[in-house]
Amino acid sequence: MSDALKKDFEALVGKANVMASESERFSYAYDAAVLDPVMPSLIVRPETREALGRVVKLANDNGLPLTVRGSGTNLSGGTIPKLGGLVVLTNALNKILEINEADLYAIVEPGVITAKFAAEVASRGLFYPPDPGSQAVSTIGGNVAENAGGLRGLKYGVTKDYVMGVDFFDVDGEIVKSGSRTVKCVTGLNLHGLMVGSEGTLGVFEKITLKLVPPPLAAKAMMAIFDDVNKASEAVAAIIAAKIVPATLEFMDNFTIRTVEDFAHAGLPVEAQALLLIEVDGHPGQVADEAEKVEAICKKMGAQRIQVAKDAEERNKVWEARRAALSALARVSPTTVLEDATVPRSKIPAMMHALGDIAAKYQLTIGTFGHAGDGNLHPTILTDRRNKDEWRRVEEAIDNIFDVALSLGGTLSGEHGIGIAKSKYMEKETNRATILFSRRLKKALDPKGILNPGKVIGE
Amino acid sequence: MSDALKKDFEALVGKANVMASESERFSYAYDAAVLDPVMPSLIVRPETREALGRVVKLANDNGLPLTVRGSGTNLSGGTIPKLGGLVVLTNALNKILEINEADLYAIVEPGVITAKFAAEVASRGLFYPPDPGSQAVSTIGGNVAENAGGLRGLKYGVTKDYVMGVDFFDVDGEIVKSGSRTVKCVTGLNLHGLMVGSEGTLGVFEKITLKLVPPPLAAKAMMAIFDDVNKASEAVAAIIAAKIVPATLEFMDNFTIRTVEDFAHAGLPVEAQALLLIEVDGHPGQVADEAEKVEAICKKMGAQRIQVAKDAEERNKVWEARRAALSALARVSPTTVLEDATVPRSKIPAMMHALGDIAAKYQLTIGTFGHAGDGNLHPTILTDRRNKDEWRRVEEAIDNIFDVALSLGGTLSGEHGIGIAKSKYMEKETNRATILFSRRLKKALDPKGILNPGKVIGE
Repeated sequence: MSDALKKDFEALVGKANVMASESERFSYAYDAAVLDPVMPSLIVRPETREALGRVVKLANDNGLPLTVRGSGTNLSGGTIPKLGGLVVLTNALNKILEINEADLYAIVEPGVITAKFAAEVASRGLFYPPDPGSQAVSTIGGNVAENAGGLRGLKYGVTKDYVMGVDFFDVDGEIVKSGSRTVKCVTGLNLHGLMVGSEGTLGVFEKITLKLVPPPLAAKAMMAIFDDVNKASEAVAAIIAAKIVPATLEFMDNFTIRTVEDFAHAGLPVEAQALLLIEVDGHPGQVADEAEKVEAICKKMGAQRIQVAKDAEERNKVWEARRAALSALARVSPTTVLEDATVPRSKIPAMMHALGDIAAKYQLTIGTFGHAGDGNLHPTILTDRRNKDEWRRVEEAIDNIFDVALSLGGTLSGEHGIGIAKSKYMEKETNRATILFSRRLKKALDPKGILNPGKVIGE
Repeated sequence: MSDALKKDFEALVGKANVMASESERFSYAYDAAVLDPVMPSLIVRPETREALGRVVKLANDNGLPLTVRGSGTNLSGGTIPKLGGLVVLTNALNKILEINEADLYAIVEPGVITAKFAAEVASRGLFYPPDPGSQAVSTIGGNVAENAGGLRGLKYGVTKDYVMGVDFFDVDGEIVKSGSRTVKCVTGLNLHGLMVGSEGTLGVFEKITLKLVPPPLAAKAMMAIFDDVNKASEAVAAIIAAKIVPATLEFMDNFTIRTVEDFAHAGLPVEAQALLLIEVDGHPGQVADEAEKVEAICKKMGAQRIQVAKDAEERNKVWEARRAALSALARVSPTTVLEDATVPRSKIPAMMHALGDIAAKYQLTIGTFGHAGDGNLHPTILTDRRNKDEWRRVEEAIDNIFDVALSLGGTLSGEHGIGIAKSKYMEKETNRATILFSRRLKKALDPKGILNPGKVIGE
């Protein structure tokens, strides 16, 4: 990058908010995905939304590729910059602009931390349900860009279901407004819907309007312990078939249980072949009824034992252990590949079965946990990328996992996004016309291709 | 239209499915909006999805404007064709392709009638909540194109919240696929989200995947009778503030009550200044608690009397009366203008107040009813379009209603769409950059501008 252009960015965001040293650039060359780092030429950190808009315009005027980065927890390479491109940090744009308790919405800047926002909302007696695994550090802007999921997707939906509106900068730095503070709004094209999950390729978020809901009055968490993976996965399908929609319905296999217990010491039963972690919530009467039914179904499907959390502390301990799964697994081997191919819920037993076969066929260690209740499992391959032979088998296994998920009527990605990791698989699930349609759309909205190029639809 | 082109359409859909007589063309020259009819040159009715795709391609090849029409219940002119254009009927594409009870989704063709679909889903023990006023005749395709709302929007959301995926034809007649049968899916851009509410301007739906939910176990309906409009509208805000989310929370003013009672003989209290029709649903325990709380709030806010429906028959009678509101009002005068400017829920009292002032200022009869619980009122102006002086006042009153809604943080349209009726107001709520962004997008996806031109974003 020319010194003149760097100075222009300094003028927009202040010298202290421009980083260009090699170590700084390397810090922003990668994200949480297992992909090679790519060096940007500059990192800028606008402190106001106005400055953010001017940064976008300056980048576009100079044809400079731009990747917006929240906390970089992305698992599909969505925040890996273009070589020599610009990284735009949102962490200074972290103001909650409004929480409206009467009308059940909030307006936030993109850099607000998910868990902080959820806690602030909770302190006002309301509830923001989306809870991606990385919520303690992830940003709302990143969640919207990736349509982040989480443990509560089953009952409460994902980030998409809470985005009422997005104001965003187009490539010329002009603010485009879509959506409303009202529950119903059909004014104009659903551009905020298009922004959700667009992985930073179509616009840069200025502010986001989020729906809030009243919190459930009661909740009950329980752990069902199985001596057989199949029994556990069949219990998942049986719970849904009984028309019970738990707030969370999580699965862990034996490998994950042992690894997590070793890390988190939550008192998980290390001898269990599979665990279901289930929480039902709502009106106290509903919670009592549903908990009883869930318990009966688990027993009928062969659960050895069911442990109901006695109090909030016990309940939190279990969920913290579950949330630690990725960190725990990541400690075991040099490379951790966290997949999220997703199937219709009734296909969970078939998917679990296939994952066992794939691990055996490619001689790999796959720990599986995840959001079984919405068909979104996270088979996690523990490997070492430097071992070329093993890495080849890992890649073949991933291909195989996608093929199985698609053959079961599922999808390539439930909540981690396509990014650069999966864009080559897109045509497998959709078709050529879908890719071309998406590229025409992208080209029209970003003629120079500066907005996070290469993500979702390839280049 | 040339005879040769007409013959080409006949070859695609069969001679019996092509209509060109003046009376037939006039039948499809208008919809439910108060707008001048515009004559198409041809109406075609494909009987297969393949034929639909070929119709789209043929229209595009010939630069022929194309308006897809479900049942024409549109209230913003979204199904009024372009002069000399093509109307494509979906009423032969009315197959429910799949209802999956285990995985809680359905796949339908665009011409399926909303109420028929909901009934079929109910017969399988499941629930499709969106219930636009026109559900008895409206189509799912039309609902998706308009993002139709309804009485249950408050608790259950609108059509958008149930669209898991849309396969649609691009202008070249190629199928574009977006979304999945899975609860979570972030594979590719959210094109199905973009299709929702796009009013037929970006693609032609081939099939639609809809989310289903377990039905509520219990429901309780009640009618709260007020001697003062303000007391009723303040009761609405108070119910929401108490963190109760009823399934429906409907409002009717005295004029509407009298007109509906005259038409439907449902036993509505014609002396009441305002009615709230409220239904709570869910677990029986929750229903009992919430009904009690709602009753207490209504009494506290000054309700004269509260009538709880004793059985399903009584309950249905009230809802049928509410659903008859538009038909009843439409009988009173030659022209009925049904508006749907929408405000944040807490602003309902202010909006009601403003509507009273506007009716007085412009000396107009405005009957107001609607979905008060989600801020979506339907002020209905009873007038005669042939009376030029009065019609001028009507137009000024509508402008005024929009200005008030926007000044209260609301939106131009809650559920009726922009169509051609409101596209000139779009910039008031958004801005120039938003219109231009939308037009760039439209131009890229429909270079010849054949897909329902003039709707949403003007021309």
